[in-house]
Amino acid sequence: MNGNPHLFIPGPTNVPDVIRRAMNIPMEDMRAPDFADFVIPLLADLKKVFRQKSGRVFVYPTSGTGAWEAAITNTLNTGDRVLMSRFGQFSMLWVDMAERLGLEVDLCEVDWGKGVPLEDYAARLAADKDHKIKAVFATQNETATGVTSDIAGIRAALDATGHPALLFVDGVSSIASVEFEMEKWGVDLAVAGSQKGFMLPAGLGILAVSDKALAAHENARMARCYFSFSDMIKLNDTGYFPYTPATQLLRGLRLSVDMLLEAGMESVWERHNRLAAGVRRAVDQWQGCRLVAHGPEWHSDTVSAIYTPEGVDARHVIETAYHKYQTSLGSGLAQLAGRAFRIGHLGSLNPVMLCGALSAAEMALVDAGVAIEPGAGVAAAQEHFRATTPPVQKSVTKARAA
Amino acid sequence: MNGNPHLFIPGPTNVPDVIRRAMNIPMEDMRAPDFADFVIPLLADLKKVFRQKSGRVFVYPTSGTGAWEAAITNTLNTGDRVLMSRFGQFSMLWVDMAERLGLEVDLCEVDWGKGVPLEDYAARLAADKDHKIKAVFATQNETATGVTSDIAGIRAALDATGHPALLFVDGVSSIASVEFEMEKWGVDLAVAGSQKGFMLPAGLGILAVSDKALAAHENARMARCYFSFSDMIKLNDTGYFPYTPATQLLRGLRLSVDMLLEAGMESVWERHNRLAAGVRRAVDQWQGCRLVAHGPEWHSDTVSAIYTPEGVDARHVIETAYHKYQTSLGSGLAQLAGRAFRIGHLGSLNPVMLCGALSAAEMALVDAGVAIEPGAGVAAAQEHFRATTPPVQKSVTKARAA
Amino acid sequence: MNGNPHLFIPGPTNVPDVIRRAMNIPMEDMRAPDFADFVIPLLADLKKVFRQKSGRVFVYPTSGTGAWEAAITNTLNTGDRVLMSRFGQFSMLWVDMAERLGLEVDLCEVDWGKGVPLEDYAARLAADKDHKIKAVFATQNETATGVTSDIAGIRAALDATGHPALLFVDGVSSIASVEFEMEKWGVDLAVAGSQKGFMLPAGLGILAVSDKALAAHENARMARCYFSFSDMIKLNDTGYFPYTPATQLLRGLRLSVDMLLEAGMESVWERHNRLAAGVRRAVDQWQGCRLVAHGPEWHSDTVSAIYTPEGVDARHVIETAYHKYQTSLGSGLAQLAGRAFRIGHLGSLNPVMLCGALSAAEMALVDAGVAIEPGAGVAAAQEHFRATTPPVQKSVTKARAA
Amino acid sequence: MNGNPHLFIPGPTNVPDVIRRAMNIPMEDMRAPDFADFVIPLLADLKKVFRQKSGRVFVYPTSGTGAWEAAITNTLNTGDRVLMSRFGQFSMLWVDMAERLGLEVDLCEVDWGKGVPLEDYAARLAADKDHKIKAVFATQNETATGVTSDIAGIRAALDATGHPALLFVDGVSSIASVEFEMEKWGVDLAVAGSQKGFMLPAGLGILAVSDKALAAHENARMARCYFSFSDMIKLNDTGYFPYTPATQLLRGLRLSVDMLLEAGMESVWERHNRLAAGVRRAVDQWQGCRLVAHGPEWHSDTVSAIYTPEGVDARHVIETAYHKYQTSLGSGLAQLAGRAFRIGHLGSLNPVMLCGALSAAEMALVDAGVAIEPGAGVAAAQEHFRATTPPVQKSVTKARAA
Repeated sequence: MNGNPHLFIPGPTNVPDVIRRAMNIPMEDMRAPDFADFVIPLLADLKKVFRQKSGRVFVYPTSGTGAWEAAITNTLNTGDRVLMSRFGQFSMLWVDMAERLGLEVDLCEVDWGKGVPLEDYAARLAADKDHKIKAVFATQNETATGVTSDIAGIRAALDATGHPALLFVDGVSSIASVEFEMEKWGVDLAVAGSQKGFMLPAGLGILAVSDKALAAHENARMARCYFSFSDMIKLNDTGYFPYTPATQLLRGLRLSVDMLLEAGMESVWERHNRLAAGVRRAVDQWQGCRLVAHGPEWHSDTVSAIYTPEGVDARHVIETAYHKYQTSLGSGLAQLAGRAFRIGHLGSLNPVMLCGALSAAEMALVDAGVAIEPGAGVAAAQEHFRATTPPVQKSVTKARAA
Repeated sequence: MNGNPHLFIPGPTNVPDVIRRAMNIPMEDMRAPDFADFVIPLLADLKKVFRQKSGRVFVYPTSGTGAWEAAITNTLNTGDRVLMSRFGQFSMLWVDMAERLGLEVDLCEVDWGKGVPLEDYAARLAADKDHKIKAVFATQNETATGVTSDIAGIRAALDATGHPALLFVDGVSSIASVEFEMEKWGVDLAVAGSQKGFMLPAGLGILAVSDKALAAHENARMARCYFSFSDMIKLNDTGYFPYTPATQLLRGLRLSVDMLLEAGMESVWERHNRLAAGVRRAVDQWQGCRLVAHGPEWHSDTVSAIYTPEGVDARHVIETAYHKYQTSLGSGLAQLAGRAFRIGHLGSLNPVMLCGALSAAEMALVDAGVAIEPGAGVAAAQEHFRATTPPVQKSVTKARAA
Repeated sequence: MNGNPHLFIPGPTNVPDVIRRAMNIPMEDMRAPDFADFVIPLLADLKKVFRQKSGRVFVYPTSGTGAWEAAITNTLNTGDRVLMSRFGQFSMLWVDMAERLGLEVDLCEVDWGKGVPLEDYAARLAADKDHKIKAVFATQNETATGVTSDIAGIRAALDATGHPALLFVDGVSSIASVEFEMEKWGVDLAVAGSQKGFMLPAGLGILAVSDKALAAHENARMARCYFSFSDMIKLNDTGYFPYTPATQLLRGLRLSVDMLLEAGMESVWERHNRLAAGVRRAVDQWQGCRLVAHGPEWHSDTVSAIYTPEGVDARHVIETAYHKYQTSLGSGLAQLAGRAFRIGHLGSLNPVMLCGALSAAEMALVDAGVAIEPGAGVAAAQEHFRATTPPVQKSVTKARAA
Repeated sequence: MNGNPHLFIPGPTNVPDVIRRAMNIPMEDMRAPDFADFVIPLLADLKKVFRQKSGRVFVYPTSGTGAWEAAITNTLNTGDRVLMSRFGQFSMLWVDMAERLGLEVDLCEVDWGKGVPLEDYAARLAADKDHKIKAVFATQNETATGVTSDIAGIRAALDATGHPALLFVDGVSSIASVEFEMEKWGVDLAVAGSQKGFMLPAGLGILAVSDKALAAHENARMARCYFSFSDMIKLNDTGYFPYTPATQLLRGLRLSVDMLLEAGMESVWERHNRLAAGVRRAVDQWQGCRLVAHGPEWHSDTVSAIYTPEGVDARHVIETAYHKYQTSLGSGLAQLAGRAFRIGHLGSLNPVMLCGALSAAEMALVDAGVAIEPGAGVAAAQEHFRATTPPVQKSVTKARAA
């Protein structure tokens, strides 16, 4: 009765009503004669979202974490050396997983607020004359800090040294939202999740794999079963799955992919940039607050992590927003706990939703004693949105009824 | 993919997700042995929303207009004299209906922006020594102008003269939102619709009737069939309906009534007042704009009609909000067309939703060339909402899952 | 947890899951600039379901009863003579309405189990040299008895005598299910409801009107407002409605009309005939039971009313089916109460659903002491369905995901 | 338009409409302050379904296969010896997984149609004086053959020899449907999936774990990360999850658990037995067909696998049922391909639904040339259902509206 809650965490994101409807279906027979007619084109079209023509996409009933594990256990071997960097909660967890799965991690520690250190990577690759490094890992978008890294730059570093390592990208909070080019950038394994740019509930880990990674799979000997590429390939090639798939999510994914491709990936990326820029304009107006990201080159178009002023507990801001304004903001994770909050701005969103979110944040900041001018951030965002509106879309009613 | 559209017309209002779910049910047998176990308590509880212990409530598969017609044809006779006033599109249409149904209308014309003229009503009632006036009509909330009238005052005028006329109230955009007291105010026929404060889709006309009106029904001879009280009474008393009821809406109504009564009607009224006041604070900041309502005594807590400055076509503001900001504002009706737009603020809403709506209105006004300061209205609303938040509700998650 | 309930009353019928999804949408702005783009083609396509090119279709937020009232009050005058026949609960109620609305009814009483008496109608029309009869009423499908009447035959009788009376058809439980030809049969007013062949929830009364009836409207003087053709025409012509429409139902209707027209009306009619024939084969096996319809010429393809043997209370069968087998059968109405039960077989149904329904009926009959052979009816229906299956449809999965 | 499809595979099962509604919710913040208030009681109540007071339940976003892997990798070590038996597709896949994950399998081959060989298990355990066998695996319900094994008997064999091995049970198609007693039977790891007796979509692997298994976890050294008990325990203890949970499924699970516990597990088991017995009565009537299960001691109450007569390809029966009768039957897997079909009878079902399914099977069998008497199976099932109906439930309408 008190209206809708407002969800501005960086995932799960808001599921469009049309997708909720597309998923709200009775169970179906995943071994039906014509189920393959649904699966095969879906997997083919998913590749277009990742921008790959070769290779494969796997869809697991799992989370992004599970897809990370699938990527590693299917293509590397215990004791393999991998190049990684750590600059936020999620890159940190990835390092942790790599170590627990038995990899030897060549680790670059980076200040939180920056991303993958290109020069450092380049230097270590150049120094690795024997090609002991089997894979290079990069978190494209560090969800904890709102920092985006330069994946094309890593490819350039690999190419410059002629290094044959596989390139792993964690694109959980970037793919289907900001520019990602599987083939152009020579990415070998890219991990995405259903609950971010794909605008679906959590439950699917989506993994794009290059032909080179598929070749590496042939010689990878880690124990695996649930996440096995081979099992998946065998069944996927016939249009089925090795175990019961989450058919509701797959039907939702079908619509999500249709929506993304119909809009065009470039348009999706531009939309996220426009929305993110509005949020950043607002943050600029909030005296005492600043982005965790160290500079524009690191700005993430899917999530902004924002330091509260010294002495103001960000947890208090988040709790106020939640209880008093029915608005979920992202919390500060690990070393950012209490020091920062986050605004997720990816997936199905529009300027008016963001003006609401920025209002909630402003009210909660003022309640917490931060001396910002009420409305100032919203005003800056409004001006940005006004000035950048794309050509009028006339099909609102039609889309609503879809 | 571009986020949710924003609905801020004064009805249909936003249907809470829990109510949408409660209505999304398979068809059921409206003659099932136990269907009465559902209907009888529902009709009883509906009376609590109208604040009546005696009398009855009828639920018709119709619109508010149909419920108006039911009220008239069941209790009056052709040629009956009725006292009415006209100060907006909906009071105007009601007069039109009364005339078309053969009533003789004793009409008070009132400037749009004011409401029921109490002194005028009192004078005419006092002058009507022979009690030729069979009924007094009052639009409690004129949806076209955002004006609320004083129903208790009309009752006082009737009582002061000992006038026996029936009191008809159009409460379509007020009942279940702002204070309404069927029995305390001696209202005889009160009309509501499902798509306003009841937070349901359009489709049900809800009509509360006093014992006095039921007595009048005995002597009312207009032709009627679909809307017949007698047919409805006969079947309702057994827990059924004289024709196929809209069971999905009834199931939704069950939840709506539960939500309203659980919160308490006083709390519902306060909530609407708080939200409306926020909107009015914002309008105060918009230079050149002003409320259509002539003064605070007329302010409606469910809808604000706002004049745009001379030379600014309000239709342009509305179209810009719709196409550019995915936001539906109410249009100016009849003599207000092009001169005013409306913001509906009733039903299931919260401050952050309204901050979004005010942002949309601000952007559209600036786009239309109105020289307001961006963000100023939102800032004023924020300050109001911050200062008036009721005690923290902890049950958000629980409600969400209901 | 105990499975789905089974609905086999003659309306509301089972709403297909795709239609439930299409209706489960947020409220929308029924005055939006592009709402007309939705309404105008919908009204145009609806005419194809009625098989008319000229004339109009009106969609009211009401029940079939309301649409009856709309038909009468908009085209006839108080005291007009009309020719009607009465052979079941619904034709009986229609006569009752006509009388209450002030028409003079020239009534043919017919045994329940037969339908419109063509010879009698022809004789009375021939005798009416002065054309005092302004309208001829026919219930195409008497839902209470499962009897279908010959509308083309009535047209022939009118034409044979050159009688100018309007032809009113109650097609609530026939239109969109069995053959109906608005233009070919020269029908002037045809009433349908959303909750039957249109496979929607109750809530819309749908009325098709010929040009001749629209001309009659010009001279019709009964009091009316909510149901006024003129108000509806004025707004419909612009793509809007005179009062808040039930947008969820309209969105569902859009899909329903698409499904009907995509299948083709002839195919829809054949499907209903096939399903009905299966039910009749089953009834033939039930010793002691027989159809209320007096012979094959009266058999309804949308509902079968079935006498239980002497001494067996049909209410007991219905209650047993409901409580013990979660199955809703239709009850015997008026003089059929306790003597007959009904199986609705219209709308979204398939043979396996009907085999379930027939099993429920068989179990309930045996429980009630009827000496039928368990399974015998189902077996006969199975044989019929096996022998008549149309060519395999391959698109089941696709439709399911729509 | 052609009615609902019919799903009678042994999983995914039919999701009750109330559960579909409970899951059709917007995304929520899985780190919200009050999310723990939802998670902690859910995990506690889940234990009641497994009938355990000690130990834990883990809920993974995965399939049953993933839960198998979680069970093994968290409690055993590479090279551990385990006692297993193979008598169907799913017990076969489990053996395959055990071997791929590096266990040494002591394997009992059993004819398909029988289940866990108690004597053989007892003998091997008795012979294992050194307790090299670290775990005993048992498929409680072999979904491919419709065979249920005696888990209490295995516990007895373990106890008789005082053997300390862990007891693993695959209960994917039995738990929440047929008797399962985690604590009474001394089960250490029990695997279930959301899409069977829990009546939810696929997507959750549910794993119950004894204290003994949790102790074994301390010394288990297999590589694992996504499925790590430790990570899950750490977060679950605070009411959260180590990665984004599938909140829609969890909300559905909440209702599912409520429904199961409200009915009482014993009542759930009885219901499945009653429904299964009806299906078996029908199969008895189908000349030339017989159950794959070798005798009543192996009969499964959740799925019946049925041999078609020699010369009749079961795939043809399944395809006919699917395309011609919109009914999904389970296929024969591995060595049963073409020789058998399956009818799933678990989850949310009732007798009338099963009479429909049996009709579909009968029609498809006759179409395939099997010389059964049409209706004979349905008749036998009807008689069984009639005779065994539990006391009338009066709350049908109420449940429907929930």
